[in-house]
Amino acid sequence: MISLAGGIPAPDLIDTEGLEAATCHAIKSAPDNIYQYGLTEGERFLREEIASHMVAQGICVEPDHILVTTGSQQALDIVARTFLDEGDSVLVEEPTYLAALQVFDMAGANTIAFQVDQHGIDFTRLESLAAKRRIKLMYLVPNFSNPTGRTLPLAERMDLVEFAIRHDILIVEDDPYGDLRYDGDHVASLFKIAEQSFNSKHRVIYISSFSKTLAPGLRLGWCIPPESYFHPLCRAKQSMDLHSSTLSQYIAGYYLKSGRLDNRLKLLKKAYKSRRDALIKAIAEHLPGTLELNVPEGGMFLWGRFSNGLDASLVLKQALSHNVMFVPGKYFYSGTPDLSSIRLSFSTITPSLADEAVKRLAIAIQKTEQLQAQE
Amino acid sequence: MISLAGGIPAPDLIDTEGLEAATCHAIKSAPDNIYQYGLTEGERFLREEIASHMVAQGICVEPDHILVTTGSQQALDIVARTFLDEGDSVLVEEPTYLAALQVFDMAGANTIAFQVDQHGIDFTRLESLAAKRRIKLMYLVPNFSNPTGRTLPLAERMDLVEFAIRHDILIVEDDPYGDLRYDGDHVASLFKIAEQSFNSKHRVIYISSFSKTLAPGLRLGWCIPPESYFHPLCRAKQSMDLHSSTLSQYIAGYYLKSGRLDNRLKLLKKAYKSRRDALIKAIAEHLPGTLELNVPEGGMFLWGRFSNGLDASLVLKQALSHNVMFVPGKYFYSGTPDLSSIRLSFSTITPSLADEAVKRLAIAIQKTEQLQAQE
Repeated sequence: MISLAGGIPAPDLIDTEGLEAATCHAIKSAPDNIYQYGLTEGERFLREEIASHMVAQGICVEPDHILVTTGSQQALDIVARTFLDEGDSVLVEEPTYLAALQVFDMAGANTIAFQVDQHGIDFTRLESLAAKRRIKLMYLVPNFSNPTGRTLPLAERMDLVEFAIRHDILIVEDDPYGDLRYDGDHVASLFKIAEQSFNSKHRVIYISSFSKTLAPGLRLGWCIPPESYFHPLCRAKQSMDLHSSTLSQYIAGYYLKSGRLDNRLKLLKKAYKSRRDALIKAIAEHLPGTLELNVPEGGMFLWGRFSNGLDASLVLKQALSHNVMFVPGKYFYSGTPDLSSIRLSFSTITPSLADEAVKRLAIAIQKTEQLQAQE
Repeated sequence: MISLAGGIPAPDLIDTEGLEAATCHAIKSAPDNIYQYGLTEGERFLREEIASHMVAQGICVEPDHILVTTGSQQALDIVARTFLDEGDSVLVEEPTYLAALQVFDMAGANTIAFQVDQHGIDFTRLESLAAKRRIKLMYLVPNFSNPTGRTLPLAERMDLVEFAIRHDILIVEDDPYGDLRYDGDHVASLFKIAEQSFNSKHRVIYISSFSKTLAPGLRLGWCIPPESYFHPLCRAKQSMDLHSSTLSQYIAGYYLKSGRLDNRLKLLKKAYKSRRDALIKAIAEHLPGTLELNVPEGGMFLWGRFSNGLDASLVLKQALSHNVMFVPGKYFYSGTPDLSSIRLSFSTITPSLADEAVKRLAIAIQKTEQLQAQE
């Protein structure tokens, strides 16, 4: 089975050697700490390392204002539980990250979707949504979004922050892929735009993760909230799991301290870029005109739609029997889904595998079309 | 500073050697798995090991019905979020585990306390509470409770289960200390009583943890819900942190597989028993007649109250300036607290330290009495 479905980092690109070294260093240097209870907000030295790491994203933050979380998933959940009450309204891009929708759903919130298409965000629609009801929170993955791979351009980011300020909406900026840019230039984070362009320090909660760059199995993410929100979020986390794995924090901390991450990111970006390009090339070759593609500047996902409107779920059925899988795009919608959309993850598809993956996909599509013609 | 305040396992009793061996084994045997995403319900082989381990508690359970959690704190939170709606009523012992009260509070539930004194549970009061309102959930730490150290006798457990069945109340049995019994005989869990004596398989959710026996820094606990509740709980966990640290799970799994836990438990029980006894002896010597004590058959806590009604918070103030600390009991109450109650943790107080700890405590008490007399 060739899987274009997962959102996992490539196993062959995880720096097991570096992680092993960091683990051994932790065992040797801090045997009395790594197995013991720790602080809810996270180990100080890891927070210092994260603060240094954030500089690459143009975010200057004191270690004391960083909350270490059990993956960025928990950061999202902490934010939802702290800020959302039953029935509150949350704005989300359509389509968006599935597990974020689950979090908002569990918090009892109403998610209201706004479309982002090739022309960008429809701000007229956004304004009319905000005019109708109080919106408390807006959730965005501005860099190489899951599932669409899209990156919000600077002008749209500026407009979004201005919109959020005007309507008193808290922005949750989820940025797990920010370090994985393969083309184009870095775009300032919403967090930074709010602070620097609008002098607003209480507008954006920035969330990120080590899951895509270091190792998801450590379950470590972090959250940079406006200062005044730090303690409420920390209290919520305490009730949720006391703190994140001490051992994981030491491993991540020592790994960052070792300086290996920079080189690893270079390696990851080079490898993922070539995997993305190989998959795009194979699609152009074996599926000419069949799949309209978004080409992302980073991250892990190609987003496509069948130009003849084929139902992606039917294609998946055929695909599975031809040993290839992907995720139909419909799962990422909170409103009416585009049934012919699909998400293709290229992170685990080496260039030598891309051809075979797309050939199988092409057969599955052909079969689906044949079956439809027979009906 | 000598701390009788913490609820942490003794650092000198953590099996760092065994944990290190398990960690190295994990690195060597499963380098492709330990850093990668895992299943929400937990790694299969760890769940098998937990199932074997549960046999000591008289609980027979399929590995498939065990949900691995990020500490037992998360298990509690998962249960609260799955079963409790805003305004629901939860019965708790008075006093009880502080962080459980925080969880129920965060879920928007009303906690209703029932006293447990030397005569046991007042069932007349329980019945009148249940007659007045629908109670959804009842939370108990039946073995060596935090903070009181009390163990519910079998007869009371039977009555509680019968009561819960009659009023359709779900019991949450929190058992982090169950493996740490120093005196007396094992008492059947509420989980087992419900199943075996009442043929009721949908009444009790059993929760436990590796934090007191293995290492809190791994952040691993587990939850054994009735079968029909497994999937809703698993879905909630998925939204909360996707899954618990894969590396931690491999370490715990390999540690259990190594067979070292049995010996470690023997060692822990011997050491904690002698720490408990040394502290009791020192209290009898230096504080005769001052402190009424609960003597627990296991766990980590002595619970006491000042027989002359002294305010424990005032004593703590003096204690801190004499380099000894403890937790005033009032923090463990959801209703009106007993201000003269205190919790003394003996887990980190070696017998050679007990005398000095209690001497300092005696001075602090004397000082407090003097200050009160002057007022």
